[in-house]
Amino acid sequence: MAYSSDDLTAQLAFLAEADQLKSVERANTLIDLSRQENSAEHSWHLTLYAMVLAGQAGPGVDISRVIRMLILHDLVEIDVGDVPLHSANGQAHGAPEIQAAEAAAARRIFGLLPEAQGAEFLALWQEFEAAETPDAIFAKSLDRTQPLVQNLASDGVGWRKYDVTYDNVVSRVGSKITRGLPRVWDHLHGKLRQHFARGGRAGH
Amino acid sequence: MAYSSDDLTAQLAFLAEADQLKSVERANTLIDLSRQENSAEHSWHLTLYAMVLAGQAGPGVDISRVIRMLILHDLVEIDVGDVPLHSANGQAHGAPEIQAAEAAAARRIFGLLPEAQGAEFLALWQEFEAAETPDAIFAKSLDRTQPLVQNLASDGVGWRKYDVTYDNVVSRVGSKITRGLPRVWDHLHGKLRQHFARGGRAGH
Repeated sequence: MAYSSDDLTAQLAFLAEADQLKSVERANTLIDLSRQENSAEHSWHLTLYAMVLAGQAGPGVDISRVIRMLILHDLVEIDVGDVPLHSANGQAHGAPEIQAAEAAAARRIFGLLPEAQGAEFLALWQEFEAAETPDAIFAKSLDRTQPLVQNLASDGVGWRKYDVTYDNVVSRVGSKITRGLPRVWDHLHGKLRQHFARGGRAGH
Repeated sequence: MAYSSDDLTAQLAFLAEADQLKSVERANTLIDLSRQENSAEHSWHLTLYAMVLAGQAGPGVDISRVIRMLILHDLVEIDVGDVPLHSANGQAHGAPEIQAAEAAAARRIFGLLPEAQGAEFLALWQEFEAAETPDAIFAKSLDRTQPLVQNLASDGVGWRKYDVTYDNVVSRVGSKITRGLPRVWDHLHGKLRQHFARGGRAGH
């Protein structure tokens, strides 16, 4: 697709706006516990997860489309912030008012781009959010796997903040990973049991 | 490609090792000047640049391969650190001893993966470094464009640190961007002239 000089100005403005994702803090930390992870580096890590775990993808999954979804998936947090999965006892993430705010953010942010490109990116983000296509299901499974691995490797510091139990992780995280990465869930489920058996939860 | 349980353990170890890229500091800052950029979020930003500027790619460029190169391109910095382009008056970046250290880092880090996958990733990184194929030329151009945009948007704070001149940017950055993104270079070249005409350099 060819773009005009105005298009290039709009594209560079979008890319500058995207810089703000580097300042959105997430609930989990880096593995070395030095600080909270931000949503931009989390997004990069997920694209690497997609490349590395591509062999686990089910039939019909196009890894290149999955990677594109993951690059875009958190840009709405520039306006809305990260809503931790386990905050408000698991009720905030996915609440209708958060979903409406994220949809508005997507329209504003992708609306900075030339029209056809903005529509293409918005559609890809909407497909990810809906989690119905093979690509979106795989992408969502990766998005649940990476924080689980970060939490297991950092003694559950991100979980303790929200008093997260073993059952919470199984229902909010395991249910999603199972859809797209069943073998990875089997592998991590064992480690999760060990973590909570050792008393790895708030105040224990 | 199917993987064994041992393969999955190796893949998760590689993904945990990769977490350290989030702690590698670069010369330039975020656009809001709040802190130095790190190499993981820089890598994410580059993948977004690749998606947004795909229409500028020359014939024979496969954007999905470019994105994969960009996801991997800085992992060697886990061992070697970021060597700023303008440090040591432009002599450190690309020096034989740095290239040898990065090649050793690539063998170690990609060597954590199952053998076939590690070899595939290593070959992709080597192709990026050699900057000869259409995909690698485009990826390298993006890798020069993003810090230029960051510097222009943050009053050249990353340039001032190394006393960088207009001519330095043209020779070290412009020459590379021109190869893969000539129209983007034309657009940014004008802004660069304005920046330095306003006295945007160290001590001026």
